[in-house]
This record gives sequence, structure tokens and C-alpha cells, in this order.
Amino acid sequence: MTETQELRQQELATQDRLPKVKEVIDRVGISGLRTGLKLSNAGNDSHFTAEIDLFIDLSEDRKGIHMSRLVESINEVVSRGSRQTKASFEELGMDILDELKKKHRYSKGEITIRTTLFLSRHTPVTNRLTDEPYDICIGVISRNDKFFKKMRVKAIGNTLCPHSLETTHGKAHVQRAELDLQIEAPIKEKIPLEELIAICENSFSSPTYTVLKTPDEAGVVEEMFRNPKFVEDVARDCFRQARNLKFKGCVKIRATSYESIHKHNAVSEIERVFE
Amino acid sequence: MTETQELRQQELATQDRLPKVKEVIDRVGISGLRTGLKLSNAGNDSHFTAEIDLFIDLSEDRKGIHMSRLVESINEVVSRGSRQTKASFEELGMDILDELKKKHRYSKGEITIRTTLFLSRHTPVTNRLTDEPYDICIGVISRNDKFFKKMRVKAIGNTLCPHSLETTHGKAHVQRAELDLQIEAPIKEKIPLEELIAICENSFSSPTYTVLKTPDEAGVVEEMFRNPKFVEDVARDCFRQARNLKFKGCVKIRATSYESIHKHNAVSEIERVFE
Amino acid sequence: MTETQELRQQELATQDRLPKVKEVIDRVGISGLRTGLKLSNAGNDSHFTAEIDLFIDLSEDRKGIHMSRLVESINEVVSRGSRQTKASFEELGMDILDELKKKHRYSKGEITIRTTLFLSRHTPVTNRLTDEPYDICIGVISRNDKFFKKMRVKAIGNTLCPHSLETTHGKAHVQRAELDLQIEAPIKEKIPLEELIAICENSFSSPTYTVLKTPDEAGVVEEMFRNPKFVEDVARDCFRQARNLKFKGCVKIRATSYESIHKHNAVSEIERVFE
Amino acid sequence: MTETQELRQQELATQDRLPKVKEVIDRVGISGLRTGLKLSNAGNDSHFTAEIDLFIDLSEDRKGIHMSRLVESINEVVSRGSRQTKASFEELGMDILDELKKKHRYSKGEITIRTTLFLSRHTPVTNRLTDEPYDICIGVISRNDKFFKKMRVKAIGNTLCPHSLETTHGKAHVQRAELDLQIEAPIKEKIPLEELIAICENSFSSPTYTVLKTPDEAGVVEEMFRNPKFVEDVARDCFRQARNLKFKGCVKIRATSYESIHKHNAVSEIERVFE
Repeated sequence: MTETQELRQQELATQDRLPKVKEVIDRVGISGLRTGLKLSNAGNDSHFTAEIDLFIDLSEDRKGIHMSRLVESINEVVSRGSRQTKASFEELGMDILDELKKKHRYSKGEITIRTTLFLSRHTPVTNRLTDEPYDICIGVISRNDKFFKKMRVKAIGNTLCPHSLETTHGKAHVQRAELDLQIEAPIKEKIPLEELIAICENSFSSPTYTVLKTPDEAGVVEEMFRNPKFVEDVARDCFRQARNLKFKGCVKIRATSYESIHKHNAVSEIERVFE
Repeated sequence: MTETQELRQQELATQDRLPKVKEVIDRVGISGLRTGLKLSNAGNDSHFTAEIDLFIDLSEDRKGIHMSRLVESINEVVSRGSRQTKASFEELGMDILDELKKKHRYSKGEITIRTTLFLSRHTPVTNRLTDEPYDICIGVISRNDKFFKKMRVKAIGNTLCPHSLETTHGKAHVQRAELDLQIEAPIKEKIPLEELIAICENSFSSPTYTVLKTPDEAGVVEEMFRNPKFVEDVARDCFRQARNLKFKGCVKIRATSYESIHKHNAVSEIERVFE
Repeated sequence: MTETQELRQQELATQDRLPKVKEVIDRVGISGLRTGLKLSNAGNDSHFTAEIDLFIDLSEDRKGIHMSRLVESINEVVSRGSRQTKASFEELGMDILDELKKKHRYSKGEITIRTTLFLSRHTPVTNRLTDEPYDICIGVISRNDKFFKKMRVKAIGNTLCPHSLETTHGKAHVQRAELDLQIEAPIKEKIPLEELIAICENSFSSPTYTVLKTPDEAGVVEEMFRNPKFVEDVARDCFRQARNLKFKGCVKIRATSYESIHKHNAVSEIERVFE
Repeated sequence: MTETQELRQQELATQDRLPKVKEVIDRVGISGLRTGLKLSNAGNDSHFTAEIDLFIDLSEDRKGIHMSRLVESINEVVSRGSRQTKASFEELGMDILDELKKKHRYSKGEITIRTTLFLSRHTPVTNRLTDEPYDICIGVISRNDKFFKKMRVKAIGNTLCPHSLETTHGKAHVQRAELDLQIEAPIKEKIPLEELIAICENSFSSPTYTVLKTPDEAGVVEEMFRNPKFVEDVARDCFRQARNLKFKGCVKIRATSYESIHKHNAVSEIERVFE
């Protein structure tokens, strides 16, 4: 650099100067920002405690991004959310990425919102209403001004081992199991979170419930013994239903069985692209 | 303070000056220091990857402790350990507290060593040898120049629900379970870690194993169905055996059952003092 | 047992029979139940995603508790909460313990509610409004029909090392730090959560903020350099303010400094009983 | 299926029968198996406590894999390891995958070994010897009978903010930071773990040390102030050195700065393929 160029560099904010190593950064931003969120659907408000990651790319000729603009974009949309109505996490994510575009240049932006969703269920025999918790994670990606989404749900159920049911003649080991179902698709694909969670719950030997009276507990146990499943069966049954959603994009399934006869876990994964 | 007193203060190391708030600190030191450890028992070396906390008390007239002396005390004993032979974590802990006493004044010192212990087991039917992992945590406390110890072991087993076994006529829900057994006693009480772990494993519907061939798996399932246990039974059976160790001190038991029919856990705790 | 006694036992629910080991259980119940909660204060609703533990004691002559009644007590109060107004977590906890007393015998009951509280703050220079997250944990204990409470807050700030500020002449290492402040007191003591959190934030070299514009960032850095603090200073400053709350009960303080020059942490603890 | 076909199916082990959903499983196996490992290099033994995942693929015409054969393959190689000498985790991984091939059919196999590596360092001024811990993760993949490796190291250092150093005239916020460096390459590429860790440590404002005497602490602080770095600089400096290793494969870098002025983290990622 000439002396003049160097002087000009010094006049810029530290972030806007040339970096020593001239390389594009793929993702830079903030992780683990916690905030409250509100969604409004058909007049009903839902409240969430969420953790947000927000990343953009950075060209090779800038030393750093202006991080506070990322936080400001989240804050403005979230506080505006109390006045306007957003029906979904996807809309919220797109709004934040749009707001950020006004404040900071980027060609790829990605927001991830991790939170807990509660859904109403009925117990299988006494038909009681229970609220069940599900970890969810919604990502919105802006790539060359097109939006994509990532949806990830985790559901807790159980597996009853088909092999042991045969070899011990009607007895079997059972255990808590978890399905982690992720899809990535263009933003316009209609894939409700509730449906992804239902797909997971239908894939276990039985779903699980927060409250179970004695007849319900017996009902769950009977259902487990009617549906013995390896962790492979859980992943395949989940995949079959996910394929039936008929969207373009990709799907990742991870079934984990917290074995009751071992200290380690059994895991089964399927990944596919639907074109 | 007079001007002279203040000048004298400035000549001291920052840590040795008077604090603004004159209060005794109960425990101050380092947490999460990771190191490799070696024990030698009857000519056999055992190697461990451990995480250490080391705390001392601080009188009301000192601003701070000299933290590097804590780390040095650990390092000296641990590296010396490669030349000398220590047979137990308790000896190692006492050595470190003794070494620290030479370097730093304290009236109460406490070291905690968290690591994984592997023990040999045989599978129940085919009699294969397996190495099973257990989380352990050994504490040594020096109080007015007397030593005490805390021993904590965690073992993984399972519970088979006795209530569901009756109501569903021979079927039952089963799940992974964990026992967390802690004892605190004068240092001289002879209580081998291996015995505490065995007590835990005997308290479940069945222990768990890393490798199980088909006949072993059937054996474990049969054993679970012979020993249906609530999480309350697991805690009580663990307590009964711990009491039989006949030591002076206290015991804390926490049994956790990772329910296969619920998303939450069932827990049972017993705490007692033996005098 | 005589044959008649045994027959009578078989007629009872499994839980109500005599256990093999006749020992009181100190705490038995459920842990990690997740639910949504609402509080209403002066017409303002606040929404929380919470994780609940609920434990009771069990006499030596019963094999087990009826776990579903614990979940039902939570569900009834929480869903009723949407119609009635509860102003605090303490009230919610007392209600659940009262509801449980109608369904299940116990002499000691304990509920713990873990959640995230958001509080409004202003940035130090540009005076922007930000929402800051705090992990809190509220316990309510019923002991011989008297209520006690446990309040625990965690706040994130920083420490600037006073020793290094001197030895490197105006330069110093700085790091993220955390205060964990717990109090236990009779239920009637007035100790607002917000005040406990403020006490923590006042104890660091500086509090932390979610959004900081350049002048705010400079303001925080200047404040850190004006308030160099060892982790011992943080614990003592927190204690001094907690003592000024003038309640009867006990206090536990744990300050942790995630050292930027080490891989391990520095920790300082103070515990006191106020009578 | 005809009746004869069905009868033939029943004669097979449960795992070997046709699944209801005929889909290939990409990865199925065990996760979180804990074991002790030994490596021998130039006559020096190193001992590790490791956690292992072992996965294979499964064709669409088999219901399940025989999980116990995975555990047996690990056990045989690990116990044989006490007699034979393996110099690296890669060799150990290849041996386990070869052993498994004798016991179970697969076209893709993948083993992951997570453990802690200790390396010797000298403090910057007093030149003391310290043992520093690093989380590492070694993967070996067998794909169509060719071996590939994944190497992942995590190192803890710090960042000193260049922007705040300018705006507050020689003062700055500092914080603990972490680099997560992953490479994937053909097995024959020579890339020592120690070198990957050194690359990470050279990328921070300063490395961190377990023990630091007062002159060392001053030395580290001086070094941090000489090397102010954004999290973007850390990722780029790490990338520049990784590129100089001149291997064919891909690299993923994630730098995380645990901000001392915020409650959230700053993150920067670079991913590249070297051909």
C-alpha cells in the first residue's frame, strides 16, 4: 500500500479496512442470543423463549462485520412483532433478514431460531388433554435474494426391541427414544411444524405423554408391545411419511434409542434429496 | 487508613492488600482444570483423564488468593506421580492439599477429582469379559488439619415398572436408569470405589453391559422381569447396602429413571447421617 | 406376614403395599417436566417456558407414590392460571403444593421452577432499550404446613484483573464472568427477583448488554477499567448487597470467572445464615 | 409374499428379514460407547479415555444390523491394542473397520473417536513446563474399500477487540475464545494432530496456559495487546495456516469468541475444498 492508501484505511472504521488475509468468510455473526418471541395465528397469540443465531457472509476486502447491526435487526423486528402480527417463525426470520439487508451488505444470510413448541395431545384411554413439549429449530436462509428454510423438530417416544420380544417369548426391553427430523426446502413449500412432529410421533413403538392415568399407562404399554421396532424401523417409518409430504428439498432423519440394556445408544440415520 | 498505612498497602502484592468488603470467603480457587493422572496398585498402573477443582478459604483481611500456587501444587504432585506410586485418588488428593499448605495459608482446603473408572464385568450368560465405564468423583477435604473424603459414583442400569407389570399382565415398560451414590466420611474409613459401584448395580432391575450376545440379551430381559422396581425401590435397595458398609459419615442417594412412557424423569432420593 | 395380611396387600394398588426395605424416602417425584407458564402483574401478562421438578417425601410403609397425581396438580394449576391471575412464581408454587395435598399425602413437598426472565435495561451511553435474559430458579417448600422459598438467579457480567492491571501498567486481561446467587427464606420475606439480579449486575467490573453501539462499547470498556475486580471481590460485593436486603434465611453466592488467559475457571463462594 | 416365503423369513434372525419400508439406511450403529485406549509411539505409551461412535450402512432388504458385532469389533482391537502397538488413532480406526468387515457386511463404515489430548507447552516468560488439554475427534471412513479421515481439534485462546482498542485509546475488551478446526482428507495425507492444534493456538490474540506466574501473566497480556483480533481475523489466520499444509481434502473452521461485553457469542466460519 502507498502512504496515501494507508492513511485512507486509517480513516475507515476498523471493520471496513482491508484484512491481512484476504479470504471470504462464509458465515460470521452472533450465536446464542436469547429473546422472547410472539406469533399470532388466527387471533391466537403464542409466546416463546428463543435462542437465535444470525450469520452473514463477508467479502475478502473487509476486516470485519458490524455486529451490532445484527442485534439491532433482531430487536427491531421482535419489538415490532408486538404491534404487527407474524404467523410463523419463517415470516419472522425473513423479516429480520430483510431488515438486516437495509443495515449491512451481504450475499448470504442465515438466521436460526431454537425454541420449545407445546402441542395439545389426548391420552390414549382416558382421553385427558395434555400439553407436550417439543424442541424445534427454524432456519431461514437468504441466498442471492432467494429464501430457503430449514425446519428441525425433535420428538421423544420409545422403542421395544423386536429381536428380544421373540427370543424371550413375549418379554422385551423397552427404552426412551428420540427422533430428530430435519428438512431443507424453498421457503414456499407448505410444511407445517405440527405435521413434522406428528410424523415423528407416529414412527415410534408408542408416543410418550406428560400425564398418564393407570388405564392410559396400560394402553401405552400394550401399544409398545403391538409395535416392536428397531431403531432402523423408526428411521424408515419416519422417512416414508416425510417422503409423502411431497416437497422439493432434502431430509435428514436421526433416530436414537437410549438402550435400557446398554450404557451406550443405538442410532439410525437416513438422508435423501427429493427433486 | 492513614497515609502511611496506605503506602504500605501499595507495597504489597495486589492479592495481599485489605479488601473493601471485609468478609471471609468460604471457597475460592480453580474449577475445571483438566489433567492426566496415574495410580499404581500392586504393580498395576491405571491411567485417567481427570477434571479437578481445588478450593481454599480466605480470611477477611486479604483481597485475593495466589491462584497460580493452586495449579502448581496439582502439577507438582501429578508429575511427581510418574515417579512415586500413589494407590488411590484419596492419597493423591491429600498430597496436593499438603503441597498447597507449604505454598499458601488456608484453614479449609478441598479438592475434587472427576474422572471415568473402567471395571471388568462378565456378561450374564455367555460370560464374555467387558469393560464398563463409571463416572466417579473423589473429594478430599482438609478441615483444621483433619482429612475427610467424599466419594461419588454413578452407575447406569434399568427399571421395570412393577405397577405396569400387574396392570398389563406380564408386559411392562422398562427404561434406562441411573444411580448417583455419594458418601462423606473421615478419610480413614475403608470404602472401596468398586464396592460403591457394585452396590449401585445390584440395586437396579438389572445392570447394563457394553456387549451382549443374543443369549445374554435374553438373560438381561429375564432378570428385569424377575426384578420389577419403582425408582423408590432402587433408592431403598441402594440405601440398605450402603448402610451395611457400616461407616461413620453421611450418604446421599439419587435414583433417576428416564421413563420410556414420559418425556420427563422419575427421581427418588434418600439422605442419612450414620453416627 | 400372615396369609391374610398378604392377601390384603395384594388387593392394594402396587404403590400402597409395604416395601421390602422399610425406609423413609426424603424426596420422590418428577424432574424435567416442561410447561408454559403465565404470570399477571398489574394487568401485564408475562409468559414463560419452564422446567419443573416436584418432589414429596414418602413414609416407610408405602412402596411408592402415585406419580400421575404430581403431574395432575401442576397441570390443573397451570391451566387454571389462564383464568385466574397469579402475580409470582411463589404463588404458583404454593398453589401447586396445595392442590397436591388434596390428592396425595405428604409431610414435605418441594417444587422447583426453572425458567428465563427478561428484564429491560438501557445501554450506558446511547441509552438504547435492550431486553436482557437471566436464568432463574424458584423453589417453594412446604414443611409441616409452613412455606419457605428458594430464589436463585444467574447473571452474566465480566471481571478485569486488578493484579494484571498493575503489573502490565494499564493493560489487563478481561473475561466473561457469572454470578449465581441463591437465597432461602420464609415465604413471607419480600425479596423481588429483579433486586437479586440487580445486586449481581452491580457486583461485576461491568454488566453486559445484548446490543451496544460504538460509544456504548467504549463506555463498558471504560467502566471495566475503572472497576478492576478479582472473583473474590465480585463475591464479596454481591454478599454485601445481599446482606443489606435484611431478611432472615441463608444466602449462597458463587462467582465464576471464565479466565481469558487460562483454559480453566476461577471461582469464589460465600455462604451465610442470617438470623 | 407367498406362504413359503413368509415361513422362510420366520426362520431368519429378526435382523435379517425384509423390512416393511424398503429403504437404504445411511448410517446405523452405536454412539457414546466409552472405553480406554492406548497408543504407542517410539516406545512411549499414551493412554486415553475415549467415546466412540461406529456406524455402517444397511441395504434396503434387511430389517436391522447385528449391533453386538460392532461392539465386539471395537473390543477385540482395543484389547489386542494392549499387546500390539498402534501409533495413531487412524490406525486404530482402520483396524476396527477391518475387523468389523469380517463380522458384518457393509459398503460404508465410519468410526469416530472423541478424546482429550494433552500436549506439553512452556509458559512464555518463566519457561515452565505445563500440560495443556485439547478436545480432539478422529474419524475414519471406509467407502468402497478406500479409507478417508476426519480430524477435528478444539483449542482455547483469547481475542482482544481491535475496534475497542482504538476507540478507547489503548484499553480493550478481551475474552476467552475457541477454535474448532476440522479437516477431511484421504487417509494417506500426513497431517499431525499436533500441527492442527499449533495452527489454532497461533491464530488467537494469545494462547492460554494452565499455570502462569506473574511475569508470564504479564507476558500473555502484552501479547494480547500486540495482537488485537476480531473473530474474523482468528478464522482467517487459522485458514491461511491450514491451507499451507497443502493437502487434498476439505477444511472447516469455526472461531467462537465468548464476548465479555455481551451475553451472546461472536462466531466466524470458513469452509473450503482443496483440490
